[in-house]
Amino acid sequence: WEVVTLDGVEQLKKEYTFKNFRLALELTNKIGALAEEYKHHPGILTEWGKVTVTWWTHKIGGLHKNDFIMAAKTDSVT
Amino acid sequence: WEVVTLDGVEQLKKEYTFKNFRLALELTNKIGALAEEYKHHPGILTEWGKVTVTWWTHKIGGLHKNDFIMAAKTDSVT
Repeated sequence: WEVVTLDGVEQLKKEYTFKNFRLALELTNKIGALAEEYKHHPGILTEWGKVTVTWWTHKIGGLHKNDFIMAAKTDSVT
Repeated sequence: WEVVTLDGVEQLKKEYTFKNFRLALELTNKIGALAEEYKHHPGILTEWGKVTVTWWTHKIGGLHKNDFIMAAKTDSVT
């Protein structure tokens, strides 16, 4: 995970690559299930062979401990 | 749909908004099914209450007639 600043907001960002679109979309859905379970929602960019995930906390406009926890949980479903 | 230029590549872009994450992810999956059916794959950014779709043609680094067709098909599943 890398810390990036997008539109002035610090975020955790990571790319996962795959050999096709289907596998990328599968990860998107796994992360979506995590997001719903923990009521914390990332940005998930799904493309052919690639998923880019960003975690940040809207209400503080930056990073909170929860984002790091969710990043670790994201890795655990990949 | 609006034409935007991202990293020097012209793309068609549209945002769809929803009242929660689940409905956003549902649209992501509908668009994913379209993409697989037509073997042409967009960028799909899924966030809480929002899906942002971008269509472009990788091999020409810009817009092709197919992108406009896929944009119309995307609207048809929303």
